[in-house]
Amino acid sequence: MTSRLLVSALLLVACSLALASDPSPLQDFCVADRDSKGTYGCQCYTREWRGLQADDFLFRGLHLMGNTTNDVGSNVTAVNVAQLPGLNTLGISMARIDFAPWGLNAPHTHPRATEILTVIEGSLLVGFVTSNPENRLITKRLQKGDVFVFPEGLIHFQQNAGNGYALAIAALSIQNPGTITIANALFGSNPDIACDVLAKAFQVDIKVVQQIQSKF
Amino acid sequence: MTSRLLVSALLLVACSLALASDPSPLQDFCVADRDSKGTYGCQCYTREWRGLQADDFLFRGLHLMGNTTNDVGSNVTAVNVAQLPGLNTLGISMARIDFAPWGLNAPHTHPRATEILTVIEGSLLVGFVTSNPENRLITKRLQKGDVFVFPEGLIHFQQNAGNGYALAIAALSIQNPGTITIANALFGSNPDIACDVLAKAFQVDIKVVQQIQSKF
Amino acid sequence: MTSRLLVSALLLVACSLALASDPSPLQDFCVADRDSKGTYGCQCYTREWRGLQADDFLFRGLHLMGNTTNDVGSNVTAVNVAQLPGLNTLGISMARIDFAPWGLNAPHTHPRATEILTVIEGSLLVGFVTSNPENRLITKRLQKGDVFVFPEGLIHFQQNAGNGYALAIAALSIQNPGTITIANALFGSNPDIACDVLAKAFQVDIKVVQQIQSKF
Amino acid sequence: MTSRLLVSALLLVACSLALASDPSPLQDFCVADRDSKGTYGCQCYTREWRGLQADDFLFRGLHLMGNTTNDVGSNVTAVNVAQLPGLNTLGISMARIDFAPWGLNAPHTHPRATEILTVIEGSLLVGFVTSNPENRLITKRLQKGDVFVFPEGLIHFQQNAGNGYALAIAALSIQNPGTITIANALFGSNPDIACDVLAKAFQVDIKVVQQIQSKF
Amino acid sequence: MTSRLLVSALLLVACSLALASDPSPLQDFCVADRDSKGTYGCQCYTREWRGLQADDFLFRGLHLMGNTTNDVGSNVTAVNVAQLPGLNTLGISMARIDFAPWGLNAPHTHPRATEILTVIEGSLLVGFVTSNPENRLITKRLQKGDVFVFPEGLIHFQQNAGNGYALAIAALSIQNPGTITIANALFGSNPDIACDVLAKAFQVDIKVVQQIQSKF
Amino acid sequence: MTSRLLVSALLLVACSLALASDPSPLQDFCVADRDSKGTYGCQCYTREWRGLQADDFLFRGLHLMGNTTNDVGSNVTAVNVAQLPGLNTLGISMARIDFAPWGLNAPHTHPRATEILTVIEGSLLVGFVTSNPENRLITKRLQKGDVFVFPEGLIHFQQNAGNGYALAIAALSIQNPGTITIANALFGSNPDIACDVLAKAFQVDIKVVQQIQSKF
Repeated sequence: MTSRLLVSALLLVACSLALASDPSPLQDFCVADRDSKGTYGCQCYTREWRGLQADDFLFRGLHLMGNTTNDVGSNVTAVNVAQLPGLNTLGISMARIDFAPWGLNAPHTHPRATEILTVIEGSLLVGFVTSNPENRLITKRLQKGDVFVFPEGLIHFQQNAGNGYALAIAALSIQNPGTITIANALFGSNPDIACDVLAKAFQVDIKVVQQIQSKF
Repeated sequence: MTSRLLVSALLLVACSLALASDPSPLQDFCVADRDSKGTYGCQCYTREWRGLQADDFLFRGLHLMGNTTNDVGSNVTAVNVAQLPGLNTLGISMARIDFAPWGLNAPHTHPRATEILTVIEGSLLVGFVTSNPENRLITKRLQKGDVFVFPEGLIHFQQNAGNGYALAIAALSIQNPGTITIANALFGSNPDIACDVLAKAFQVDIKVVQQIQSKF
Repeated sequence: MTSRLLVSALLLVACSLALASDPSPLQDFCVADRDSKGTYGCQCYTREWRGLQADDFLFRGLHLMGNTTNDVGSNVTAVNVAQLPGLNTLGISMARIDFAPWGLNAPHTHPRATEILTVIEGSLLVGFVTSNPENRLITKRLQKGDVFVFPEGLIHFQQNAGNGYALAIAALSIQNPGTITIANALFGSNPDIACDVLAKAFQVDIKVVQQIQSKF
Repeated sequence: MTSRLLVSALLLVACSLALASDPSPLQDFCVADRDSKGTYGCQCYTREWRGLQADDFLFRGLHLMGNTTNDVGSNVTAVNVAQLPGLNTLGISMARIDFAPWGLNAPHTHPRATEILTVIEGSLLVGFVTSNPENRLITKRLQKGDVFVFPEGLIHFQQNAGNGYALAIAALSIQNPGTITIANALFGSNPDIACDVLAKAFQVDIKVVQQIQSKF
Repeated sequence: MTSRLLVSALLLVACSLALASDPSPLQDFCVADRDSKGTYGCQCYTREWRGLQADDFLFRGLHLMGNTTNDVGSNVTAVNVAQLPGLNTLGISMARIDFAPWGLNAPHTHPRATEILTVIEGSLLVGFVTSNPENRLITKRLQKGDVFVFPEGLIHFQQNAGNGYALAIAALSIQNPGTITIANALFGSNPDIACDVLAKAFQVDIKVVQQIQSKF
Repeated sequence: MTSRLLVSALLLVACSLALASDPSPLQDFCVADRDSKGTYGCQCYTREWRGLQADDFLFRGLHLMGNTTNDVGSNVTAVNVAQLPGLNTLGISMARIDFAPWGLNAPHTHPRATEILTVIEGSLLVGFVTSNPENRLITKRLQKGDVFVFPEGLIHFQQNAGNGYALAIAALSIQNPGTITIANALFGSNPDIACDVLAKAFQVDIKVVQQIQSKF
């Protein structure tokens, strides 16, 4: 019983360590542990520890449409190291993005990754904004078969530009890219950012800030 | 004359190349060109080309208070490779941040850098927000002598938490960290992001979006 | 005229330099030159040089089926920095792989990249082999919607495991991953590798080597 | 007893983690554990844990000739992190290659490293093949005192070009470069790659494939 | 009791591993453990293990003057991952350097970091020496507000160039830059470097070496 | 004539850029220019520019004994990117070190590289010193066939521990590691470091400093 607790505690230590390392691999691969629920499957196994399995390098179900019945009408199905443990240390991940008609993948950043995206079905209006002081919006209407790049760390968005369904497949340049949806991070953080900070930043009345915060 | 044009054109090519390289140095240093106005001083000289000077590694004036009479009441004096050419390839830069009473360095990200900051004078309320899905606000009231870290790519802000003047010195983990002030990038981009994208992202009326856009 | 030659020569110098740099970006982006035919579009432009265009970040036509009427019955449509100049320094690229019935993407390595692949249509038998001394074959039959990883530098292959057409979308962890098709590199190099080297390596008669070489 | 098992299990976890990290050192050094048999000596000790010893940075016996009585007539004595634990995180390793008369170090790749080699004794015919689509063979006959480079991830080989004994010392650009001997990985994997895959890849009859497989 | 020992042993394993990883972050942050005395607070916790606290990203007291009553008349207050656990994996650290009148921060190197420094008070004579064969001394007298760069791995020093007190704030390009004070490393190592080595290196009599060693 | 000057000027720009980039390769290789005397052969050519030659990857003469008739009785023959242009971007280099009886390769650091060394002939006393505050000397007497590691950036030395000749082959973890011979950098810099700085650092009389400086 004590041992069991001990193992659990130490696996958690190990877990945090695994996620701290850099994606440049030092061996053929370093599979993370799919079974450690709640800790994003993070222990790293070499082939010495247990029999390696092809399933360690497999994720199933990217053909399944995500549920877009939400406020923005889009859904991201991520395939990163948490879902596909064989990605550990290998510097890449994937995602599927579904869009209801006019659905929006709201402005967000990936703090540690560039994104490349191709449209499988439908038409998307996409854009990213360059950093200060220019804040240029680079925007394009994409058709089926178009490929577009969103550089590392820049704010970007994708919107279904049509009445039909739209689908994109994206890849990201690290095993765990992270996502910061701007509106959620600013107006839906836990706890709230002080109203006066947001009011001054966006140059609006505090009541507008409170109104937006109430939605998140 | 043709030659002169040619040289200019090629220096611009060279310039873009210099900035494309990684900060891991391959020689003692690689000084960028301070004199190429408008291109951020980016050509890289080896010691073979011209006499190396101590001034290549020097920036003067970080003791001078920045002008904080603006909408947010703060001012950032950056010392990166554009101002200090000797920083080229060396993976670090610095900044001074001045705050009028209650002044705000509005929520922003550095897409390629972690920031470490120490309070030289006054008191600051600082915070950063973790990525999805938690969006936890990590916040602290800093006093003189406090040092705080803002991890790479995360949204963060600093606010003068007092009626006096405040001053901080910050360092960033790359020669050209970039800054994305969220409100400016979203509501003041050039051209504008479509109103309906922002309205859906922030779940507000289009009129509110237009009102905010008019301020930027 | 001399100047024109000079410019061409120097653009080639610049070109080679651009491709020598590391993918860690030092600015928002660093677009390569789409127009320099034969040199893989490699000059890098900053925003100071010319107007930035959304098309710099765009590739069109990944929905078009590749021509699979060849010896192995497969076709790779690559979207790397040569086809999509905005990828320069950003550490990622994409590809579409078409398979005729029972078509094979023959055993190959990417010397500088991990590959992640998802099956859009059909069914694929995929595998990779671990390094010495174990040389374990990790293999899986993939269905539509499956995602699989091929770790950096390891030999891998994909085969259409059915009578229908098959399609996969892949992403790679660098802007210019390179491909080494093993059979072509060993038996179809220019000039040929000496017969006795290959005969000893594969432990076959020199006649067998010559027979294979005649096919490539 | 339970504790002992527990310790073993956890050392294995730790071990796998150590090998997952990148070679950029974060401290003076990080010695791996020489004593953990079968797991490639992978735990990493700081100086706080035990007394540091000069032997942690020492490997003995590179002057000893390797046994070249095998099918190819060559032998590689590797000195990487498994043999020299002090190399952990430091980004380099070494090897000695012995050649019987006309002996061959058969075509192989190092998936994570460039190799530099100098001939100590004898004469070697060496070569590497560039990636697709050119697959150019770069080849040279080396004499005593020659130094040659084999770029990261490319297929290369060395053959004793004389009736005498030959010896080379090589260094590789990472602590654990890995080796993929092409013939072994393709025709001697465990389990076998399907015959039809290899037959189509090399454009030979399935019987030829089976014949080669039987040798490995 | 056994369990307690076991936990301690394993935390030390974990500790050494945490410090072995590269500063490129794979998640928002990876806080090290402030409480593990003697091991520089090195375990890495993810947010799953315990409640994250703002104090993990905070160091207090950089406004306090260091004690400069020592042989060289200077004092460095370092704020690296040992003092500020939130810096773990984030690639930056900070320091305060106090100088008594004419005090000297003696010639030293940081084996893994570039240093950027700004003078807060007083005037400093600073310099660094380039590598062989030129060994050029790049030197400058700095005033309040000056910023200067000391490239990675080069020998450098700072001296208070006045009768008053002087103060500088420095930042370094890694979480644990390390410092090698040349005189101490050469003449005060434990055990001593053999006298004849130092005598030949500095081309002085052995008695001079012994005299210097006796001071350290 | 003007064009010729122009080309020269621009090749020098290009040259400085090539050396500024990181060793992670973005293509199979990137050969530097062997012919640009005085600029360390630094332009980078892709295969598009000119016919690639095996000689680009070759250095001849490492079997030749260096001249050890100098003050310290040792000689280093370096093979880095200046001597072997094909090493450009590939992250490794090599050296031969000759020792007269009791000859010394005086204490030095490589600011950007780890060194691994094997003794080909004779016997060497080697050592390195860890960073502050411990400054532990790790030392070993090496015999023929011994391999030893000197971690990145640490001060180290090798001394012939016998009356015969000694020879070592070393490899370094970057294409241009740089060397800082401590005594030369401190007492033989150009211009001199101020006497009082060195006197205070080494805690000796200024006359001793001047005496040492006169030797360099």
